[in-house]
Amino acid sequence: MTGSVLALSGGVGGAKLALGLARLLDAGSLTVIANTGDDFRHLGLDICPDIDTLVYTLADLADPLQGWGRRDETWNFMAALERIGGETWFRLGDADLAMHVERTRRLAAGETLTAITDDLRQRLGITARIAPMSDEPVRTRLLTDAGWLDFQTYFVRRRCGPVVYSLDYAGAASAQPSPVLLAALTDANLRAVVICPSNPFLSIAPLLAMPEVRRALASCAAPVVAVSPIIGGQAVKGPTAKLMEELGLEVSSAGIAKHYGELIDALVVDIQDAQTAAPAGVEVIAAPTLMLSLDDRERLAHVVLAAADRVAAARRLTPSS
Amino acid sequence: MTGSVLALSGGVGGAKLALGLARLLDAGSLTVIANTGDDFRHLGLDICPDIDTLVYTLADLADPLQGWGRRDETWNFMAALERIGGETWFRLGDADLAMHVERTRRLAAGETLTAITDDLRQRLGITARIAPMSDEPVRTRLLTDAGWLDFQTYFVRRRCGPVVYSLDYAGAASAQPSPVLLAALTDANLRAVVICPSNPFLSIAPLLAMPEVRRALASCAAPVVAVSPIIGGQAVKGPTAKLMEELGLEVSSAGIAKHYGELIDALVVDIQDAQTAAPAGVEVIAAPTLMLSLDDRERLAHVVLAAADRVAAARRLTPSS
Repeated sequence: MTGSVLALSGGVGGAKLALGLARLLDAGSLTVIANTGDDFRHLGLDICPDIDTLVYTLADLADPLQGWGRRDETWNFMAALERIGGETWFRLGDADLAMHVERTRRLAAGETLTAITDDLRQRLGITARIAPMSDEPVRTRLLTDAGWLDFQTYFVRRRCGPVVYSLDYAGAASAQPSPVLLAALTDANLRAVVICPSNPFLSIAPLLAMPEVRRALASCAAPVVAVSPIIGGQAVKGPTAKLMEELGLEVSSAGIAKHYGELIDALVVDIQDAQTAAPAGVEVIAAPTLMLSLDDRERLAHVVLAAADRVAAARRLTPSS
Repeated sequence: MTGSVLALSGGVGGAKLALGLARLLDAGSLTVIANTGDDFRHLGLDICPDIDTLVYTLADLADPLQGWGRRDETWNFMAALERIGGETWFRLGDADLAMHVERTRRLAAGETLTAITDDLRQRLGITARIAPMSDEPVRTRLLTDAGWLDFQTYFVRRRCGPVVYSLDYAGAASAQPSPVLLAALTDANLRAVVICPSNPFLSIAPLLAMPEVRRALASCAAPVVAVSPIIGGQAVKGPTAKLMEELGLEVSSAGIAKHYGELIDALVVDIQDAQTAAPAGVEVIAAPTLMLSLDDRERLAHVVLAAADRVAAARRLTPSS
C-alpha cells in the first residue's frame, strides 16, 4: 500500500506508535501532528513537551526508560539553578535545554513553530514530518478542587493530584490549525488518519477542539483509526484512568470508543478488551497494544494500517457509506 | 585598618585581585563593581561575562585553569545545540547556563541587574558586594579593519584578530551608574578605590566613560590605587598589549600610568617594571603582580591596601594637597 499517513499524537504513548509507523512507512509519507496544549513558558523558555518527545523518539534520542527527555542526559543546569534559587519543579536536562533555547530564540525572531519544528526534525535526521497542531497558542487548563490549573502545574508540579472537574482548551476555538495538518487531511493520497494511544482528554482533545480540524476530520476521505490507551480498565501510563473517573466516564476501551464516537471508523483495543462495545460504524480490532519493544511498536503500527486499509476496501465495496 | 573598599573590575585578572581583597577584608566591607561593557544578548539570553567571572571566582566555583566559567563544567547543551544548528562560537557550559537563564528571566520580569546580581552573589555565599557598573546598557564596540564589531564578536568570535582603530562605549555618556557604585564612592568610611589589573581600555574604560563615575572618582576623598596589567612590556592575559600597540600607546606600565593619569594616586607595577615613570602625583609601587596562587592574590591585595593607606596617611600630614 502506498499513500500518506497522518498521525495525531501527544507525548510518550503516541510517540511510540508514531515510531512504529515511521519504521513501516516509506520515508516522507508519515506526518505526525503534535498536541501543543501542554506547551508553556517556563524560565523564559518556550517549551513544547509533546513535540520534543516525538522528535527525540523518532530521532532515537529519547530516554528509553522514562520515554520522554533524552538518553544519556545530564542535569548540571538544574543543580546550578537550584543553588541560585530558580524554579526546579519542571526538570530540564542539559542537552534538552538546547531545544528550548533555540526554539525560543527562533520564535522570538519571528519564525513559526511549524517551520522551526520542521527544520529541527530534519537536522536530527527524521524523515517523518513533525508539526505542531497550530502555530497559535492553545493551552489546556483544568478546573480542579485546587481551582483552575495550567496543564504543567497540574501534571508535573501537582503530579495529577487534584481532582479534575472539567477541562478547557484556551484558544482552541479561534486557533488556525497548522498548514501541515490541513494539507495532510486534504491530501488526495491520504491512506489513514491515526489517533495515537495518547490521553484522549489531555493530548488529543486540544487538537479536536479546533473547529476546523474537527470539520476536516469529519469530511476526510481516508479511514480514521484510533488506538485505545486503556488496557483492562487501566491506563498504560499517566492520569488517563484517574481523569476519566473524575469526569464520570467509564474507564474502559468502550468509554474511549464512545468518546471518539462518530469521528473514527475503527478502534484498536488490547486483546484483553476484545469484547469492547462500540457505537455503530466503529469497527473494534483487538490486538496487543502494550508497546514495550520496538517490535511491539511496529506490530501495532501494522495492525492500525491494516485496519485502515480494511475500512477503505469495505468502502470501495459499498460506496454509498 | 577598617573602612570600606571599592574595587573596579573586569573579568579574570580583576577577579583574582578581588578575591585577594575579599580574603583580607572583613565580611561586607568590599564592594566590587563589574564592567558590563562586554555584556550581550546571545541565544536570547542576557549574558554578563564579567559579573559571572567575579561571582564564580568569589564563590570558589571558577574553573581554576581558564579563570572564567565554572569548575567541573559539562558541555552537553553546547553539543546538542550544535547538532540542531545553533550558534556555538560562544561556549556556554551546562551549569553556567543557569545564571544566564535565571538572570534573563528576572530581567524580563522587571528586576534590575543590580538587584539580581546582589541576590545571586548572596545565594552563592559571597560576602563581598558585587554590582554591575550600571543597570542601563553600555556596550563596548570596536572600530577595526573589519568594520565596527561588538565586543564579543571581536573578543571571542574573531579572537581579537582584527586591528583596532578606536573604541566606543555606546550608551556610557547617558547611562546612570549603579546606585551601589555611587554609594560606595561617596561612603564617608571609604578606605580605598582599587582599579584592578583588568584591561584598561576594554574593562575599565567603559566604567570611566560614564561622566558621573569620572566626576565622583575625581572628587572622591579616598585614595585611588590602580594595578598595572602589564608585566615587562607584556599583558598577563588577553589582548591588552596588542590593543595598546594598535592604538599607538606605549605597551608598558608607564603607558598605563599615563592612561589613568590624574584619576589615580598610586600605581602598583610589577617588580620587573620598578623603574616605571609616572605623572606627577602618581606614586609607583613595585611588587610581584603575577597572581598564580591564592597567596599571590592575597599578597597583592595587601600591597594595594598598604599603598592606599600610605597615600591617606601622607594626605593627613599635608592636608593642603
